[in-house]
Amino acid sequence: MSEKIAIVGSGLIGRSWAVLFARGGYRVVLYDVKEELMTQAMGVIETQLRSLHESNLLLGKDPAECFSRVSTCDSLSSTVEGAILLQECVPEDLGLKRKVFTELDSMVSDTTILSSSTSCIVPSKFTESLSHRANCIVCHPVNPPHYCPAVEVIPAPWTSGHVKEKTISIMKQIGMKPVVAKKECDGFILNRLQYAVLQESWRLVEDGVCDPEDIDTVMTGGLGLRWSFIGPFETIHLNAPGGVRDYCERYSDGIVRVSNTFGEPRPLTGETLVKVTEYLEGDVPMEKHKDNLEWRDGVLKQLAVFKQSMPDKP
Amino acid sequence: MSEKIAIVGSGLIGRSWAVLFARGGYRVVLYDVKEELMTQAMGVIETQLRSLHESNLLLGKDPAECFSRVSTCDSLSSTVEGAILLQECVPEDLGLKRKVFTELDSMVSDTTILSSSTSCIVPSKFTESLSHRANCIVCHPVNPPHYCPAVEVIPAPWTSGHVKEKTISIMKQIGMKPVVAKKECDGFILNRLQYAVLQESWRLVEDGVCDPEDIDTVMTGGLGLRWSFIGPFETIHLNAPGGVRDYCERYSDGIVRVSNTFGEPRPLTGETLVKVTEYLEGDVPMEKHKDNLEWRDGVLKQLAVFKQSMPDKP
Repeated sequence: MSEKIAIVGSGLIGRSWAVLFARGGYRVVLYDVKEELMTQAMGVIETQLRSLHESNLLLGKDPAECFSRVSTCDSLSSTVEGAILLQECVPEDLGLKRKVFTELDSMVSDTTILSSSTSCIVPSKFTESLSHRANCIVCHPVNPPHYCPAVEVIPAPWTSGHVKEKTISIMKQIGMKPVVAKKECDGFILNRLQYAVLQESWRLVEDGVCDPEDIDTVMTGGLGLRWSFIGPFETIHLNAPGGVRDYCERYSDGIVRVSNTFGEPRPLTGETLVKVTEYLEGDVPMEKHKDNLEWRDGVLKQLAVFKQSMPDKP
Repeated sequence: MSEKIAIVGSGLIGRSWAVLFARGGYRVVLYDVKEELMTQAMGVIETQLRSLHESNLLLGKDPAECFSRVSTCDSLSSTVEGAILLQECVPEDLGLKRKVFTELDSMVSDTTILSSSTSCIVPSKFTESLSHRANCIVCHPVNPPHYCPAVEVIPAPWTSGHVKEKTISIMKQIGMKPVVAKKECDGFILNRLQYAVLQESWRLVEDGVCDPEDIDTVMTGGLGLRWSFIGPFETIHLNAPGGVRDYCERYSDGIVRVSNTFGEPRPLTGETLVKVTEYLEGDVPMEKHKDNLEWRDGVLKQLAVFKQSMPDKP
């Protein structure tokens, strides 16, 4: 019998995790306080498994067999019982995370890993006083997780080495690419990079250097193309004939000089927000927001297929 | 007879520009001080035109017909004569740019646009004293330009409105996506965003939060996938149910809080450079650097083809 994964919360992220764990060969039990959400979730999970299979993204598994290993449960304690890992997917609110983790702490065995999907709350903030705090960790996926393999693994200061290693191994087993923080850091890693770009984008628009659409064009027609398959470090390594040392020797001074002009963080409000909103709602009107989300996920799926067929590095 | 474009400098960037302008229907005359470089360049240009045609990236043109419009010339004044735009592609050195622009200034007619390919020198630094300074502008492409359509257009304070408009229109004509700066800005736009990411990546590694490979994974398995077809602003617009206003209301405070912890710019040197180099030279050893560059360009080409067939936004 396959090992059991418990998922607490059957919203967008909970469903995606269910798909991923089922694809990885695990039994998945999904819990939510609302029965109808779980019924809905099961439909979505079945569809997603089939869709991944059709695109050859199900790691060679059979979608019906994967789906047969997914079930729902309306008792939290039964959901948790015997699980090797529990993935918490409740809304992003510190008070709620604390409440849920305290409740779970009283139910789980000493061997269950308590993993949170939080995108920005460091695990020490809601696990410090728990008796199973050594079992607590964060696994923050990128949306949508079934097409974006990166997952941030953030241990608390008291997370055991064994729990960290076991979590990384489970993430790899389900086809994800874990990025492991060696210590807690506000914003984790992904959002720190995203915020660095957002802040500089905001300043360029606010200071009248360019229009909001120019920011998006420079990314989708330039930087983002390379970054979709080689990261920022590999990009600079390939951008100088002598590799990264050559690049840093040539450009470090210029990079520091330019970076010194970045200036203070800006709140994402005011006139600039009006300007950015005008551009975005012109490009993607709110009545087409949902359709555009589906379009985004469709393209990400095609990109995932594309990357699978990409030639290996020499 | 097609309008004429002059290209000064037949290195990597000069060749790419020749391909792009030929694709756009222009006559292209290529100049270099070294005869053998031009001969080499002609071979590369012919091959690239054919390769673009095979991938359906030649805007429906015939490669032989495009190539027939490209020629070389060993006299700078003849190269420049009658050109509607001159694209300067000499090495990135302020003294050299000044020298070349001063020479060109004495040769060109009042209607020729003097466009520089510089990636980081603002045009006012090498055009101020020229009699044709109103005709000077920067068109900075992304490498490799035939697969990355973004091009930064940076006018000097004295660039005429007509020259700016005409340059934008020529860039669109050759299939590029111009991003126009409204004023000069150190690092332009693309590199400011790139440096923001590089600086925060460097700090995360230097401060022991993660390893260099984690930075690349979080980009290629997450952020970069989205950014290859939706920019930073469109990404956040789609990442909150109520669009960009909703996103900014929810996250602005958190983004400012996290951004306040970014800290000072760091020089790209020292122990961290050793660590980053170790990772990169393990992943892409210097003896395979050239092969990996070719691999990168091959993938970018496939991505360009992929994006052409991508479904339109709803």
